[in-house]
Amino acid sequence: MKIAFIGLGNMGAPMARNILAAGHELTVYNRTASKMEPLARLGAHTASTPRAAATGADVVCTCVSVPAALWAVAEGPDGLLAGMTAGQTLVDFSTVDPGTSQRLAEMCATRGIDVLDAPVSGGTAGAAEGTLTVVVGGAKEAFERVGPLMAAVGKNIVHVGGPGAGSTFKLINQILVGVNLAGVLEAFVLARKAGLDLNVLYDVLRTSAGNSNMLNYAVPDHVIGRDFDGGFVLKLLIKDLDLALQMGKDAHATLFLPAVARQLYEQANLLGLGDKNMTAAILAMEQLQGMS
Amino acid sequence: MKIAFIGLGNMGAPMARNILAAGHELTVYNRTASKMEPLARLGAHTASTPRAAATGADVVCTCVSVPAALWAVAEGPDGLLAGMTAGQTLVDFSTVDPGTSQRLAEMCATRGIDVLDAPVSGGTAGAAEGTLTVVVGGAKEAFERVGPLMAAVGKNIVHVGGPGAGSTFKLINQILVGVNLAGVLEAFVLARKAGLDLNVLYDVLRTSAGNSNMLNYAVPDHVIGRDFDGGFVLKLLIKDLDLALQMGKDAHATLFLPAVARQLYEQANLLGLGDKNMTAAILAMEQLQGMS
Amino acid sequence: MKIAFIGLGNMGAPMARNILAAGHELTVYNRTASKMEPLARLGAHTASTPRAAATGADVVCTCVSVPAALWAVAEGPDGLLAGMTAGQTLVDFSTVDPGTSQRLAEMCATRGIDVLDAPVSGGTAGAAEGTLTVVVGGAKEAFERVGPLMAAVGKNIVHVGGPGAGSTFKLINQILVGVNLAGVLEAFVLARKAGLDLNVLYDVLRTSAGNSNMLNYAVPDHVIGRDFDGGFVLKLLIKDLDLALQMGKDAHATLFLPAVARQLYEQANLLGLGDKNMTAAILAMEQLQGMS
Amino acid sequence: MKIAFIGLGNMGAPMARNILAAGHELTVYNRTASKMEPLARLGAHTASTPRAAATGADVVCTCVSVPAALWAVAEGPDGLLAGMTAGQTLVDFSTVDPGTSQRLAEMCATRGIDVLDAPVSGGTAGAAEGTLTVVVGGAKEAFERVGPLMAAVGKNIVHVGGPGAGSTFKLINQILVGVNLAGVLEAFVLARKAGLDLNVLYDVLRTSAGNSNMLNYAVPDHVIGRDFDGGFVLKLLIKDLDLALQMGKDAHATLFLPAVARQLYEQANLLGLGDKNMTAAILAMEQLQGMS
Repeated sequence: MKIAFIGLGNMGAPMARNILAAGHELTVYNRTASKMEPLARLGAHTASTPRAAATGADVVCTCVSVPAALWAVAEGPDGLLAGMTAGQTLVDFSTVDPGTSQRLAEMCATRGIDVLDAPVSGGTAGAAEGTLTVVVGGAKEAFERVGPLMAAVGKNIVHVGGPGAGSTFKLINQILVGVNLAGVLEAFVLARKAGLDLNVLYDVLRTSAGNSNMLNYAVPDHVIGRDFDGGFVLKLLIKDLDLALQMGKDAHATLFLPAVARQLYEQANLLGLGDKNMTAAILAMEQLQGMS
Repeated sequence: MKIAFIGLGNMGAPMARNILAAGHELTVYNRTASKMEPLARLGAHTASTPRAAATGADVVCTCVSVPAALWAVAEGPDGLLAGMTAGQTLVDFSTVDPGTSQRLAEMCATRGIDVLDAPVSGGTAGAAEGTLTVVVGGAKEAFERVGPLMAAVGKNIVHVGGPGAGSTFKLINQILVGVNLAGVLEAFVLARKAGLDLNVLYDVLRTSAGNSNMLNYAVPDHVIGRDFDGGFVLKLLIKDLDLALQMGKDAHATLFLPAVARQLYEQANLLGLGDKNMTAAILAMEQLQGMS
Repeated sequence: MKIAFIGLGNMGAPMARNILAAGHELTVYNRTASKMEPLARLGAHTASTPRAAATGADVVCTCVSVPAALWAVAEGPDGLLAGMTAGQTLVDFSTVDPGTSQRLAEMCATRGIDVLDAPVSGGTAGAAEGTLTVVVGGAKEAFERVGPLMAAVGKNIVHVGGPGAGSTFKLINQILVGVNLAGVLEAFVLARKAGLDLNVLYDVLRTSAGNSNMLNYAVPDHVIGRDFDGGFVLKLLIKDLDLALQMGKDAHATLFLPAVARQLYEQANLLGLGDKNMTAAILAMEQLQGMS
Repeated sequence: MKIAFIGLGNMGAPMARNILAAGHELTVYNRTASKMEPLARLGAHTASTPRAAATGADVVCTCVSVPAALWAVAEGPDGLLAGMTAGQTLVDFSTVDPGTSQRLAEMCATRGIDVLDAPVSGGTAGAAEGTLTVVVGGAKEAFERVGPLMAAVGKNIVHVGGPGAGSTFKLINQILVGVNLAGVLEAFVLARKAGLDLNVLYDVLRTSAGNSNMLNYAVPDHVIGRDFDGGFVLKLLIKDLDLALQMGKDAHATLFLPAVARQLYEQANLLGLGDKNMTAAILAMEQLQGMS
């Protein structure tokens, strides 16, 4: 297949590499042009605008950070939409709110372009190894058509519903990540204050009703191991929670815990921890509670 | 061993039965006397006061609902403390705040009585089958001394620290239960509003970063299966969160998410759902959001 | 002065009427054209697009509901910006977030157009009587130039800073409105549950440290008088709190209480109370707490 | 009248002085005996136990910090209840939860002793000048009987209902204080971040819908004046909010905003600001948001 890939950030670059490695013909675009070089050396074409990249591709992929960045590469005279025509498929790997995904799908539907919202999970490691989880919203036929592309970037590829459903699934997962993690961090600050043996506590909790993936992710390496570099960074979690709150607003659903958790993470961000691992929010909690 | 067991509620009664079945000599006391009859028929002695039950026992067990109920059976002329002397051991299976556990331990220490705070997890099913998890705080030697008793009621018995540590561990678990569950319920109300296929959503989430024991507990049987009877009831969760907030207050630790989650559960309780399974909080959320 | 007025809603229509009554030459535009008729009968010109209305005016006024509505009348080939040239002044009476106000000001600055963000307070009664409070952000000279216009719509006109400052002031006021009112409503639900005499309670509170304009606004007529029609409606308060949360996000400031208050108001909105007076949130609180 | 006064803290000492100055015969008791000396020099009798102080008095007054301190002076062989007989009146000036007030009233009712819960407002200045506000719960006749005593300590004396009503009124006021103040502080942190002129902001807000006594109390002297010593201290506000949350729990009413505000104040307390003026919570907010 002829693929265009727009957005070569921490996630997008390794994904594009895997698409190339799978034998697809690839044209890339990135705002900061230097990021295209490594892919060009591997055989990718480069384009000077999203429009140029998108022109003539079977599938156009985007992987950017926020809804505004998506609109920036999609719209306008140089945007990818200006280069696309009926029959092409647009796959958005970005994590955006479902309202954005649906608006994009509607704009394209009138022009005969299928859109799939396909946010990914699994981090930079999963992107590099091609083992991402991808939850995909949009037309079932379009989903099946892009099967080979998806196989190149991920392992667990699930079609979960119509336009926007992929984004909704992803953000619901992020809600649970944000809430469960904040609960773990608050609980472990208290545990330290109470003088508990955190290793014993962790051993008990992981076999108890309070167990969660976030407990296992956060406690050994970060809360106890005190390593707060790398992995999913705090400011991205805040971004995802903001998208989730936007989704809640649009769906007319209340989200009390995510709203409060978001404020807790923002406190940590305001103390300069935004580029640390999301578990670094415990550093702010400890500082704010006179512990460091 | 000669055992006294005070408090034959939903948890205490089957625990006492297992102690008896393990071959210990058992004397029971319960405020509502009729609840002693099934155990008397199985061979237990009955006592007319906590004091009478406690007199001469090797180990005195309590299993009541709240700190006030514990003080009610412990203090006063008919209380168990009035019947206990140096060398006896007191095992409190109730879930109370660590401050209560520590105060009880201090009162007893001056009189040569060891106290273990030993809250249990595993529900009425675990109590019936003798497979409870017990986290125990107090002196290590006392913990070892009561090994045969513990073996009769539970499977996973862990000594986790000094006086109050058992209560602290239990409440930290309950914090995670309360927060994780509230997050799941808010997320699934939103998912229903967004028209998602809840079965597919659950399948995706259970293999994602947002997975938790509460997700697996709540979603298939309760949120999707719509069965809200039995199991751990809502008003007990509220009670445990109140104890946890008290613990946070005493430990000078902030607990933003548990404080808000507690209010959400209370809304459900005020709509008459207190004796339903704790997952029934979703019924309140749905009603409050115009969905039922 | 030659004035264009775009947006003839509940607030805009009476404001436009007062501008006309003050002797200014007025051209109006409204999406729903029928709303222009009453003003046309009073002597206003009508325009078929925002662009047409804006062309040639000394001052172009906008008064719409949300940022998206502002961009809808401002941008595009029919938008007011297409009709404006250097030397004209744009006065936005809408309540929007300061980020929106600043973006609009920047866009216009390059073209020699002064923008004032001038959100109003005082309700439909104040709009009708020309006694609104207007907090104005933007260049001081522009503020002074539009003095006669402002005098026609309001009584208390304050220049509070540069571009966006008016919007910031307005939203900070709305934060206090939203938080203080939610506190009053939660307190009075509790008071009713506790069986207090609400009239006596109000008499005491209004001379106590807990007094606030919201207490005086909400309690006699609404909480006690049970009149929930008219006045500032709930869904506008939610809208303003959402703008305030956006402002907090942009300013990197945490807003715990507004975030939670917003969820409480949304619960009421989801029960169908969005078009009631904002104090109607107490009806939801009462219903959710088994009182009605 | 023959008056006993138990609890000579920051509030109790000047109140006792005013009672003495009004010509009543006064016997005082305080745990730290040295605090009785200034009153003894003014002509008060001193007692060595609450019981001794209470014996033979027409009215026994208490003014202590928390419910536990009230029970400590009331119960036991040396407690004031041991010294009181039918016909005496007990006036509790402490701020406690209504459950405590009601339990005390019930205990005394069976013995023919009237109890009035009479928490005071107005701070140490009001206590010194005898201008306190006193909201009183209990029997109307008892209230009228103690009129001369009340006249000695306060200016605005209101009978607000039966036993516990005084405590409920006081705590409802404290809910509004805690919520309104936290809203003001969060808003002004944001305002500083947004670079607003805080004096102009205050001038606008005090004539707007967002105005409150807390705004006027907090902003000029504390938020702008940066004076955080003296006045009502933070840890007392936390104590009062904890009592209010207990009251909400007992009344089965949700209190979302007070629950969150309490956590915000606790953050400030944990940073060592507990003995500062309650407005010092803004120092924690500023620090936690990278501003100091």
